[in-house]
Formats: sequence, C-alpha cells, structure tokens
Amino acid sequence: MKIFDTVDAMRQVVAEARQAGKTVGFMPTLGGMHAGHFSLIEAARAECDVVVVSIFLNPTQFAPTEDLAAYPSTPEADHAACEARGVDAIFTPSVEIMYPEGAATEALVPALAKNLCGTNRPTHFAGVCTIVSKLFNIVPAHKAYFGAKDYQQAAIIRRMVMDLNVDIEIVVCPTVREVDGLAMSSRNAYLSAAERQQAPTLYRALQQGREMILAGERDSAVVLSAMRNLLADGAPDGDIDYIQIVDPDTLDDVATCDPPVQVAVAVRFGGARLIDNIRADEL
Amino acid sequence: MKIFDTVDAMRQVVAEARQAGKTVGFMPTLGGMHAGHFSLIEAARAECDVVVVSIFLNPTQFAPTEDLAAYPSTPEADHAACEARGVDAIFTPSVEIMYPEGAATEALVPALAKNLCGTNRPTHFAGVCTIVSKLFNIVPAHKAYFGAKDYQQAAIIRRMVMDLNVDIEIVVCPTVREVDGLAMSSRNAYLSAAERQQAPTLYRALQQGREMILAGERDSAVVLSAMRNLLADGAPDGDIDYIQIVDPDTLDDVATCDPPVQVAVAVRFGGARLIDNIRADEL
Repeated sequence: MKIFDTVDAMRQVVAEARQAGKTVGFMPTLGGMHAGHFSLIEAARAECDVVVVSIFLNPTQFAPTEDLAAYPSTPEADHAACEARGVDAIFTPSVEIMYPEGAATEALVPALAKNLCGTNRPTHFAGVCTIVSKLFNIVPAHKAYFGAKDYQQAAIIRRMVMDLNVDIEIVVCPTVREVDGLAMSSRNAYLSAAERQQAPTLYRALQQGREMILAGERDSAVVLSAMRNLLADGAPDGDIDYIQIVDPDTLDDVATCDPPVQVAVAVRFGGARLIDNIRADEL
Repeated sequence: MKIFDTVDAMRQVVAEARQAGKTVGFMPTLGGMHAGHFSLIEAARAECDVVVVSIFLNPTQFAPTEDLAAYPSTPEADHAACEARGVDAIFTPSVEIMYPEGAATEALVPALAKNLCGTNRPTHFAGVCTIVSKLFNIVPAHKAYFGAKDYQQAAIIRRMVMDLNVDIEIVVCPTVREVDGLAMSSRNAYLSAAERQQAPTLYRALQQGREMILAGERDSAVVLSAMRNLLADGAPDGDIDYIQIVDPDTLDDVATCDPPVQVAVAVRFGGARLIDNIRADEL
C-alpha cells in the first residue's frame, strides 16, 4: 500500500492505472475509520482493480462552532485497517495542499442542502461538495463509495455528479450498525456510557416510523409524534435536532407519507450529534 | 470534422484520443463566432493534436432581462469556419441535454464575481462556472482556450480550475480587434452604424488610462475621470455601465494605481453591452 500526500503523485498513480485498463474505486473519508468505512472498502475491493482511500479531515464542512478539533483522528489505525483490507493507495494531503491561500471556489446543490442537516448546518454541504469535487478531479475513479447513513450527503453528491457530468459512478452502501442498532459513526466515540445506552433509540424510532407507514398511516404528523414520544422515553438525554419525513429525491418534507419516503433523525447527546435514516417503501 | 450532440459520444472521442497519447485542446463558445474565436482555434491547432470546439448558447449565464433570445446564432457559418481551421470535433448539445429537469448544482467563485461585470450581472459568472465545469468533465482536454477580452471570466475560470484541481491548463489569448481598435465581440452585431462609429472609444479610453498610469499618475480617480470625459466626447450614445481600475488578481478596486493594474470598462449602446480591458504594467 502506498501513501501519497501530494496531488501530482496521487493523480499519476490513478492515471497509470487507468492507462493500463484497470478500474479504480475510490472512497473519500475524514479518517476516524470504523466498520462502516470498512464495508465500503470491501465493496470497492470486490468491484475494482485498484482501491484508493483518501483521509482528509476537511475543515470547510465544519462550522466554527462544530467539532472539527475534537473529531477522532486515528491515522495509524486507519492505515493498518486499509492495508489489511487490500487498499492500494491512501491519499492524505495537508489542509495547505487542499486549500492554498486564495482558494475561493465553491460547488453546491442549494435545493438539496436547505432541509434536514442543512437547516442547522447551512455551510456543511457546500464544504462537502467542494472537497468531493476536488478529490474526484485528483482521483478520477470509475466508482466512488459512500455510506447510506449520510443520506442527504449521498443524495447531494449523486446530484452534483449527474449535474456536472462527472464521469464517476456513485455507489451507496447500506448503513452498518452495532448489534443494538446504533449506526456506526466516528462521533459515537463522544458518547458517555449513559448516552451510548440511549443512542440506539434513534434507530428504534426510525423503525417505528417505518412500521407505522407500512401499516398504512399516511399522516406525517402522527408518525413523527409517535417517534418523538419514543425518543423522549428511550433517549431522555438526547436533544432532537430534527425528525422529518421527506421525499427521497427532493428531500422536501411530506405531509402525507405515501411510500417511498425517507424518515430521518438527528439527535444531540452533549457534543455528539448523531444522525440516522431509514427508507419506508412498499414491501 | 465530426459533430456530436450527446455527452457519451463526445466523451468517447476525447477518451480515445487521450488513450492514444494525443493532446487535446478545447474551446468552449456560445456560437456567433468571429475573428476572436478563430484566433483561439488557431492557437489550439498549433499546440494540440486534437482540437474540440463546443457551441452552446448557455442560458444560465444570461439573466431573464438580458439578450439570450437576440444573441447571434450562426451554426452553419461556425461549422464551416471550424472545418476550415482544422477543428476535429464540434460538441453542440441541446439545452435539455445540458440542463435536464432537476439540475440543481452550481459552481462559483463569489469573491471574484462580485465586482466589475458581476455588479450588474450577479448570476452571470455562476452560470459560466457551472457550464464550464460540465464541459471540462465532458471534454477533459489538456488545454482550454479563452479570450483576454473577457478578463473577469478568464480570471474566474483560472481560479476555479486551480481550486477544484481540474487537470486542464487554461490558456488566455490576446484580444483580437477591428482595425479601429474595437474588440471583436458577437455583440458588435447589435450596433447601429452611428454606435459602431462611437464604439472604438472604449479602447481609446483604456489606452488613455494606461498611458496616464505609465506616465506616473497614481490616483485612480484622476485616471477614471479623464477616461470618463473621453467616453462622453467620443461615445455620446453610450451609457457607462462601469469604468474601474482593479487589482489584476483580486479584481478589487484600487484607489492607488500602482502597476500592474487592470483597467476595465463596460458601456451600453442600446441593447448592446460592450466590455473591454487593458493591463497597465511597467514597461
């Protein structure tokens, strides 16, 4: 496994692989890897000749009030985990390389970034789109892998790739969960023991919402109210950031939940803001 | 010369050329070609193995009040001119192909788009950046050619390419002028005979500004006032949109014109909005 920290060196390796007729799979990460990331690596490994992982804690997707400084950074463990899973190359640039003085360009998908996480994180998805655009130009892969836990992120990146004619296929892999249902997230590391016990309630609430919809409930307000009660009982230390039922494509709220709809939730436990989502579709 | 109207066909031709080790030069245009465009084609022809020209009258860089409907469309003459100059392929997609329903992504460089033309055309450069991003992903050339007449556009595209790590070299070619100094522009076709006679005053005003600066005048207000007087005398039917002296990199106004500075002007003659600019640098 090779590790690159410059744009030119990374680009050249991908160009050579493509020139040799090999397929390239790419997974951008912030580091702090867990089983969710590993499942993406494994998907890429199964489908592509060459697998590239980037590890870059992108400052532009964090607001000044957010947890950039506290975000788990585990480079040695990340490198070992990548190597063990057959990753061919890691791209791990500095902030100065990715954002030299004078950098001033943004890519964004305003219509998909205004709801859900975008409401309380208004600059987050412009930061995501911009760094992903950059990384896709540095690692022009055939396929890029993202996790379904970050539903809005995946929807925005898919839209951006389509709209800007980026020649990369976006693959979204299922959310990986702890045995008690908690979605894997780097931010789970922030939870106290008590919060960790309550955190699986997010997924139980989503399951409850999904079951109600599939059982025929069409009033979003009724479903959301039941979910809110379940969260209040099971996660008393959690502050609900949002619970919403949205159209899976436009990400706009739906008053009537005709499947398919996406049910999404964000809850804060102290400094940890956890998100999760589930699709409610016809069986 | 081949003509393509689908993304996949155009992309494949460029991929094959690159795979065969050929260099690709690309020139995006709105159509309505004139000697300015031809000079770009000739530069690309001299430097690259394969030359691709796109002809796409991009609606998103025109505001609803602007001249999209009137913009010169001369596809047959454009095709013949390209063929005569050895262009290998033309990409001429429909609006529906470039902006299918649901398109929602924007690329932009806000800091460079706020002054000069951006003041009265606040959405223009986001439209330019977005379409150029798309075209660069469809025609991943080695070099792309733009004219110096559109100074702000070239500065913004150069910044965007740098910031998003687009692997294309931006080449900016000198402004081509009529014998009386008027910068070549598709919009010159809108001018009445009387306006056409007055229009070269833009360039005379720019030259005057440059001469004053090179002769030692450092007060932008003094230089601009002299230019304004010259325009009032020589172009009485022109409405000044702006006359400004800016930093060549930041495009911010400078009160003190220490060379190098960029002197830029936009003047409306009826429905025709003409722009031009000149560099005032140490000799």
